[in-house]
Amino acid sequence: MQQSVLAAVDLGSNSFRLQIARVENDQLYMLDGLREPVRLAAGITEDKRLDKSSQQRALACLQRFGERLRGLPREAVRAVGTNSLRVAKNAPEFLQQAEAALGFPIDVIAGREEARLIYRGVAQTLPQSEGKRLVMDIGGGSTEFIIGNGLQPLKLESLYMGCVSYSVRFFPDGKINKSNLKQAELAARSEVQAIASEFSTGHWKVAFGSSGSARVLCDILEQNGYSNGGITLEGLEQLRVQLLKAGDVNKLDVLGLKPDRIPVLPGGFAIMYAAFTELGIERMQPALGALREGLLYDLLGRFHHNDMREVTMQQFMRRYHVDVRQAMRVAHLADFFARQFLEGELGDEDLHLLNWAANLHEIGISVAHSGYHKHTAYILANADMPGFSKTEQNHLSLLALAHRGGLEKLRGMLDTPEKLAQAMALRLAALIYRNRGDVELPAMQGRFSGTKFHLVLAPGWLVQNPLTEAALLEEIKQWKGLGVSMQVVEG
Amino acid sequence: MQQSVLAAVDLGSNSFRLQIARVENDQLYMLDGLREPVRLAAGITEDKRLDKSSQQRALACLQRFGERLRGLPREAVRAVGTNSLRVAKNAPEFLQQAEAALGFPIDVIAGREEARLIYRGVAQTLPQSEGKRLVMDIGGGSTEFIIGNGLQPLKLESLYMGCVSYSVRFFPDGKINKSNLKQAELAARSEVQAIASEFSTGHWKVAFGSSGSARVLCDILEQNGYSNGGITLEGLEQLRVQLLKAGDVNKLDVLGLKPDRIPVLPGGFAIMYAAFTELGIERMQPALGALREGLLYDLLGRFHHNDMREVTMQQFMRRYHVDVRQAMRVAHLADFFARQFLEGELGDEDLHLLNWAANLHEIGISVAHSGYHKHTAYILANADMPGFSKTEQNHLSLLALAHRGGLEKLRGMLDTPEKLAQAMALRLAALIYRNRGDVELPAMQGRFSGTKFHLVLAPGWLVQNPLTEAALLEEIKQWKGLGVSMQVVEG
Repeated sequence: MQQSVLAAVDLGSNSFRLQIARVENDQLYMLDGLREPVRLAAGITEDKRLDKSSQQRALACLQRFGERLRGLPREAVRAVGTNSLRVAKNAPEFLQQAEAALGFPIDVIAGREEARLIYRGVAQTLPQSEGKRLVMDIGGGSTEFIIGNGLQPLKLESLYMGCVSYSVRFFPDGKINKSNLKQAELAARSEVQAIASEFSTGHWKVAFGSSGSARVLCDILEQNGYSNGGITLEGLEQLRVQLLKAGDVNKLDVLGLKPDRIPVLPGGFAIMYAAFTELGIERMQPALGALREGLLYDLLGRFHHNDMREVTMQQFMRRYHVDVRQAMRVAHLADFFARQFLEGELGDEDLHLLNWAANLHEIGISVAHSGYHKHTAYILANADMPGFSKTEQNHLSLLALAHRGGLEKLRGMLDTPEKLAQAMALRLAALIYRNRGDVELPAMQGRFSGTKFHLVLAPGWLVQNPLTEAALLEEIKQWKGLGVSMQVVEG
Repeated sequence: MQQSVLAAVDLGSNSFRLQIARVENDQLYMLDGLREPVRLAAGITEDKRLDKSSQQRALACLQRFGERLRGLPREAVRAVGTNSLRVAKNAPEFLQQAEAALGFPIDVIAGREEARLIYRGVAQTLPQSEGKRLVMDIGGGSTEFIIGNGLQPLKLESLYMGCVSYSVRFFPDGKINKSNLKQAELAARSEVQAIASEFSTGHWKVAFGSSGSARVLCDILEQNGYSNGGITLEGLEQLRVQLLKAGDVNKLDVLGLKPDRIPVLPGGFAIMYAAFTELGIERMQPALGALREGLLYDLLGRFHHNDMREVTMQQFMRRYHVDVRQAMRVAHLADFFARQFLEGELGDEDLHLLNWAANLHEIGISVAHSGYHKHTAYILANADMPGFSKTEQNHLSLLALAHRGGLEKLRGMLDTPEKLAQAMALRLAALIYRNRGDVELPAMQGRFSGTKFHLVLAPGWLVQNPLTEAALLEEIKQWKGLGVSMQVVEG
């Protein structure tokens, strides 16, 4: 499948962004971009919920983005949410409305995955150079640190501090004094300290700042003569004096400060200053490129058999010592069943997800054999899995959990025909290959509609395989408890 | 520490056993043993609870055992529960009463740990021989399979089927007919099938049966001329004919059947027959030795710096790529704090547990850095950890979970002074070494009584370490929320 236009939507904690790109000769050419300062992180209440007004701002923005995306095929658009949607407890409800407004599914991604995508976006814009680079991206709710070489990220971290959340927390009315500035800096240093042993100077040669916070700080320092190029520690110290002198960010009188950056400057400053202090950074250059470009390059890769998720799956199979032959048997048969059950209605992505789940369904054995499907589900839901969104990880986790044992635990969770058919396909495949050997399979035909499965096997096979027959009878009983009818007949 | 007498108590699903041994020249000499057919597994109700009468039988038995053990030091006795106590939902409440009756702590152990201990007990009694051995132990509620070489277990499995549970489930009134016998055999074969690819004939040279079920089946087959030595498939087929002919196990008229084995014979038979069929076993010899002997040899090892738990900890540190230097720093400092807080009151076992928790507290990073303490806690609670009981694993898991992040999640869980002091010691140690480097430590003194901690640091150190000071202030606030007072002063 080849798309001529791709689009990325970044539901950031500070601003929402839409980026469109044209694909020509396997290269991306950026077209127009939209940006709206939604400030989602400022709408997170003390009990970690998105308040009404920030939801409204967000939905209105997504509706406008949705208009621009109208007509694009589903595979050509990737929309992701970051820190604010990771932490807000009412994110699931909000996301349903958000997807309706945008007209495309929205994936929430983990901090490290965000860091990986940022690096991918930034690295494309940096000059070829020898040596390792530090990239720091101060977002609205989280800050990502990456050390990489060329296009390859080597170390990824995401810390729970951002220019919006820190500005709201330490400088709620814009007032700046010694005490609240010190508090903000200490809080940020304490976060950075945890990664200092791996990210401090000496672990890289040049440092880049890819966020709006970095760019505005660089502009201020350069235009006011606080630095002779880029962000420097001395320049930050001089700006610090000005901030304390002004006493209020709204009264700060410096060149280079754009109006829409004013409310988030103090938080962004404290984080940058803390990073310079704790990591021993001397100079940082601003960089172009960001999460949205990373998303577009990732999307392009998927169309060129260069899917990061495929790489991660292979890595996980090695890391967790998966029995590869068993995984292949089960994956192959699960794919067969799923195609039978849903005929043409399963998309490529659905089949990919089933394949990944089948290949990874036994990784939990590395923890313990007893209840291993639960351990697999735990790892898939919680691990850093480059290329996968949280939504996809939860999908894989669900299929792994469902692949054996009682079904009661799944009540209400297999809530689409696709999930139900995928779960059934994986269960049947694992059941039939329970003895982990090559089984002589009978001719089989499957059908599925609503909540009814129908499986026809070539005559005589069940009698020769009484254990599988007994297991299938038990299976029918199990599904019945969940209101799903399953028929197995010979014919 | 050297004990001259050691004792093991096995709270099995069929019978409870007590075994005493004398230690001389680092060798074990078995003294008297007690056995009572408590049949715990028969008292498990449909909703997986131990019924009243089985609890009463069990407690009465443990009181008698307790009398025999009176006066022995705590370190010299190991009491463990197996499958029935693994599955019964009310096991925690029952275990409190059971420990009071016995006068010693009781550990519930996982299936594979049971298998490892059984092999350890059996292997001591087997002749030295070349080649791999299969050991099968049909218990009351679970059946263990082990392949080993000499004293070394190589593969361990525990299946959820036992002679008591199967007899109750398929032959509740002792009646035997073609249908229920077939059902029991199919259920057992279906369990065995899952391990057949690793345990079938060809993976070992000789097979041994170590349980009462194996011994009574061997006696019957040999004494009635159904086999010319040991248990054979042909012999089992002949007994099967006799079972169906009798139609009731109470009417079975064969030599070698002891009265107290009668009620559990049909279940034990079905499991043995299924194992022979599915694994392709041709002949099995009865073996002496069992879980209780394994417990005693394990206990002896602990007094000779040959603690299986130490080996497992080292393995886990390698498997999960632990930063060894950081683990050592934290373990060392946590030990220092714990000794200060509880002076002479912490036992060796408490200090060992703290040391293992400190060495393993970062294994969850292998899953994901974000929330890694939760991942560590998950792995420690669920992994197969040879040498550790479930109780100990839960203790380690608790300390790992407590070592960072909010304390609210721990409300009510740090319910002894030892746990509270251990958790505090590990948290402080991890906090002080947060930058993962070698820190110049100040002179420190700790005190603890009731719910009050007091920490004195050499003057001047906090000012030089403002991040640690801020973290300690946050720590004081956190503990206050849990009703624990913590004071940090210089002096």
